[in-house]
Amino acid sequence: MTATTTVLIVLDLVGTFAFALNGGMTAIRVAHVDIVGVVTLGAITAVGGGILRDVLLGALPPATFVDWRYLTVAAVGGLLAFAFSRGLDRFSNPIEVLDAAGLSLFAVTGAGRALELGAGPMQAIILGAVTGVGGGTLRDVLVRQVPSVLSSGVYAIPALVGAALAVAAATTGVDEVLGAPAAVGAAAACFTIRMVGLRYGLHAPRPPGTDRSDGARA
Amino acid sequence: MTATTTVLIVLDLVGTFAFALNGGMTAIRVAHVDIVGVVTLGAITAVGGGILRDVLLGALPPATFVDWRYLTVAAVGGLLAFAFSRGLDRFSNPIEVLDAAGLSLFAVTGAGRALELGAGPMQAIILGAVTGVGGGTLRDVLVRQVPSVLSSGVYAIPALVGAALAVAAATTGVDEVLGAPAAVGAAAACFTIRMVGLRYGLHAPRPPGTDRSDGARA
Amino acid sequence: MTATTTVLIVLDLVGTFAFALNGGMTAIRVAHVDIVGVVTLGAITAVGGGILRDVLLGALPPATFVDWRYLTVAAVGGLLAFAFSRGLDRFSNPIEVLDAAGLSLFAVTGAGRALELGAGPMQAIILGAVTGVGGGTLRDVLVRQVPSVLSSGVYAIPALVGAALAVAAATTGVDEVLGAPAAVGAAAACFTIRMVGLRYGLHAPRPPGTDRSDGARA
Repeated sequence: MTATTTVLIVLDLVGTFAFALNGGMTAIRVAHVDIVGVVTLGAITAVGGGILRDVLLGALPPATFVDWRYLTVAAVGGLLAFAFSRGLDRFSNPIEVLDAAGLSLFAVTGAGRALELGAGPMQAIILGAVTGVGGGTLRDVLVRQVPSVLSSGVYAIPALVGAALAVAAATTGVDEVLGAPAAVGAAAACFTIRMVGLRYGLHAPRPPGTDRSDGARA
Repeated sequence: MTATTTVLIVLDLVGTFAFALNGGMTAIRVAHVDIVGVVTLGAITAVGGGILRDVLLGALPPATFVDWRYLTVAAVGGLLAFAFSRGLDRFSNPIEVLDAAGLSLFAVTGAGRALELGAGPMQAIILGAVTGVGGGTLRDVLVRQVPSVLSSGVYAIPALVGAALAVAAATTGVDEVLGAPAAVGAAAACFTIRMVGLRYGLHAPRPPGTDRSDGARA
Repeated sequence: MTATTTVLIVLDLVGTFAFALNGGMTAIRVAHVDIVGVVTLGAITAVGGGILRDVLLGALPPATFVDWRYLTVAAVGGLLAFAFSRGLDRFSNPIEVLDAAGLSLFAVTGAGRALELGAGPMQAIILGAVTGVGGGTLRDVLVRQVPSVLSSGVYAIPALVGAALAVAAATTGVDEVLGAPAAVGAAAACFTIRMVGLRYGLHAPRPPGTDRSDGARA
């Protein structure tokens, strides 16, 4: 295993951890769940996007389900969310940063995996975004929220941009099989857009005639 | 490609477009979604049923996800729903007709695809219905509606009838591999039942003791 | 087919029937569904967990979908729930017993199938639990309940224990390919924990600071 691959896997696991922590905390906030629910929802948030991607690629069993490291990191993240549910409320800012990092990494690595498995460019971009937003969407459905990706702020757009940049780098030959530099650049672009969106409270356009001044979650 | 195949693909794409338009409009009506949400929900409504069918058949990656024409038509339908969200309200009648056409076509082509891939008759009928109603069901789950197929009017029954007729034609030898005439006949039966149900406000029976006079959506 | 296999299949079908009955009745109680909804939700409760397991294993088409006996038993269970919706309310106790039996059998047979198809021990335990709780979770999502496995009583834990015992028996050589005696023992342990939990109204721990005295369903 090359140093580059190691770096990417470490970043992927950091994203998994951030999503698990975030998923567990969201579960505690919006639903009346017990320890099983917190850990399950944390894990689903962390590995759900990769599972959806692999189902759509027909690459079964899904990598994030088979590799014990993803499941272990996801379970630990969920357990920490449970154990420190009160204390973690103070850390919403770092959690959002980690979530944006996870979104960026998953969008890029998801697009790369789709290309490796033979998907076309359009499909690879969509699958990168699905990898990034899928886990949180499953979590929201299970706790009866309208998935935030559909309604709140700038979330899917940076994922699509990151995935598109990764695909462009790989298909234009800038990068052989989407190596580390192009991947990091694409993830950084996604991350930046997401953080700017958060900082300035940006929203994607709403349908004409339905704009309201209230924010985010319906 | 024969003329028959071309006709079927065109009809399939018309169904995809109708479902995408319908899905995007439904999203705008019942949830607080932005442009990403409208297009995503339109596309999921349009291609979700075919994806569920192909997952259950193990025919991955799913045809409606891999073929760029489905995704493109679905995205265009969703964008039109977004752009003309106010104007389209006037067209609820044509939209319902297109939706019934999509349901009919998907039920029949879904059953045919299931047979081609080796499913038994009972499975092919179920998969035809799943192809027809699956996308709308995914949409309803994402926007927190009880799926209308479970609770409102006559929707699953015409899909089951259309799929059953298509399977009967194919398995009794009326039709070699479910060619155009049998497919069109089965779709027409489904379409007719659906439109009669809409016109006269018919409902499938409710459990004894739970009948209420109020209509449709809970 | 050996006598042992026959016994296991019979028990599996009993579990399927119990889940279908339970799923149909739950649908009638919590949502405004018609006959299509009751039968569909009964069938999804009965075969949904096995389908999720087989998707995650890449064993497609899913066994519970392809084998007509599962679909038939599931449909009959759903139809009975519809036909006797009033009368069955008196039988909530036997229904809970049957549901616990289904949970136990599915957790153990699901883990065994996962091992047979090459899953690792951790994955097999998770997939056993998914087989047991997956169908009910899909049903709850469709009728807009927070899935009870996430929030109410002792439900996932006995499934995990049963699956873990089955995996331990198979991997430590107590049992060659998870034969009947070990399977029955593991199922009995799951069943006992579930019934004790029901009898004494036990709950899994909730996050610190969020405990409330109200019970079960949010």
